[in-house]
Amino acid sequence: MEKSLINITRVNNTEVSEKHDVVICEHPFTIYINNEEFITLLCTPKDLKELIFGFLFSEGFINNKEDVYDIYIDDKKGIGRVKLNTNINVMKNIHGKRIRTTGCGKGTIFYNVIDSIKSSEFISNVRITYEEIIELMKELNKLSKLFLETGGVHTTMLATNEKVLMFYEDIGRHNTVDKIIGSSLLNEIDLFDKVLFTSGRISSELLIKTIKANIPIIVSRSAPTDLAVKLAKEFNITLVGFVRGSKLNIYNDNNRILLK
Amino acid sequence: MEKSLINITRVNNTEVSEKHDVVICEHPFTIYINNEEFITLLCTPKDLKELIFGFLFSEGFINNKEDVYDIYIDDKKGIGRVKLNTNINVMKNIHGKRIRTTGCGKGTIFYNVIDSIKSSEFISNVRITYEEIIELMKELNKLSKLFLETGGVHTTMLATNEKVLMFYEDIGRHNTVDKIIGSSLLNEIDLFDKVLFTSGRISSELLIKTIKANIPIIVSRSAPTDLAVKLAKEFNITLVGFVRGSKLNIYNDNNRILLK
Repeated sequence: MEKSLINITRVNNTEVSEKHDVVICEHPFTIYINNEEFITLLCTPKDLKELIFGFLFSEGFINNKEDVYDIYIDDKKGIGRVKLNTNINVMKNIHGKRIRTTGCGKGTIFYNVIDSIKSSEFISNVRITYEEIIELMKELNKLSKLFLETGGVHTTMLATNEKVLMFYEDIGRHNTVDKIIGSSLLNEIDLFDKVLFTSGRISSELLIKTIKANIPIIVSRSAPTDLAVKLAKEFNITLVGFVRGSKLNIYNDNNRILLK
Repeated sequence: MEKSLINITRVNNTEVSEKHDVVICEHPFTIYINNEEFITLLCTPKDLKELIFGFLFSEGFINNKEDVYDIYIDDKKGIGRVKLNTNINVMKNIHGKRIRTTGCGKGTIFYNVIDSIKSSEFISNVRITYEEIIELMKELNKLSKLFLETGGVHTTMLATNEKVLMFYEDIGRHNTVDKIIGSSLLNEIDLFDKVLFTSGRISSELLIKTIKANIPIIVSRSAPTDLAVKLAKEFNITLVGFVRGSKLNIYNDNNRILLK
């Protein structure tokens, strides 16, 4: 399943409507090499055999298809088992080569995080109006000078419902959010009543970062994934996407957005 | 330095001009924790203290700023040294928690790759015309149905100078390229005379993937980073970006693009 149909609230000026909307699916896919857990990619669950072969090649584990002795893929469970012809020590290889995923998350860390958060209920009384969201997104667009010049960065800003507190640009979508969180730690800014505005797509990883940092409202110019929407609902995070001009989509409200 | 001025060739129909253009900088930034090398992020070299604090918080190494005993940042060398108050075993933690970077690359793997490629000169006689690039990019835009529906995916396709051979969509920019490479391995398709078209930005990591896979021409609808441009020049990769409508930017030609 590469896409998912969900219910959203679409707002355009005074017009508010409940709609079905299509969001992209994001699935954890764990790759085992020679019976050792190697990595979990977050991906669109399609063409997984191609993904494994390409990933192993890109990371230097195989040079051609003959290097793979056997492969088994369970796309429902999100598991791929690869037996290589070489007797490679996967973990040693990770240390030696410092392998990392490419814009992907580790399934284990993912679920660990969810477990650790579940114990604490997340409550925030912050509210924001439709007009404030529209105006603050205009601010984000104006602030992103580097994007206008280079087209190559993401911008994320922290705001109250009334004004911008800080903003950061980076080639990495995740780095911009880490910079916001780091600055808040350094300056001892509480995040439980703030709003995060970002230019980038909202993946589950990004949502988890904001859950851990106690930010109750996330607003993006771009699309969320299905997993991000699910997490937002589970953890009472207000999630708004596709804020463009006077339009926006509410994926999860949690009574924090005031419409007319 | 967050941006860099480079020389490009801009083409718009029959108009060809040499221009200065601004590209975003991408720097490796290696973080050491308690004297152990921990990770190298590829990032915009700005606000690095905030990045370290936010990254360590997001990954669960610190809970507040007091958890950091000392921090030293050398932004010229791209090094950050953190001393934590806790006597954490970083590597054990990596194993236990399966930590990974967020859309970032490891400096060590990065330079290893460059070293291993340097020995073999990369020559390809494939040529493509300006019109073929424009037409094939239109194909890419048409093929991306999932993007039109969800706004949440990247699309990458492999083509000759005349026609599309395959295309893949994924929430992960890197996954789309890995799927292309994997499919080519599985179907024993030589890549030395093919062209890669992608919707996503061209970072150094993406360029390294294509260098390793022997793809001579990369065309993107989006922006490249300065590091990707440098690598393209060093390894004789033809790099074209911002292909939109009838316009495109040539960042490195290598005599493979035929203009009128």
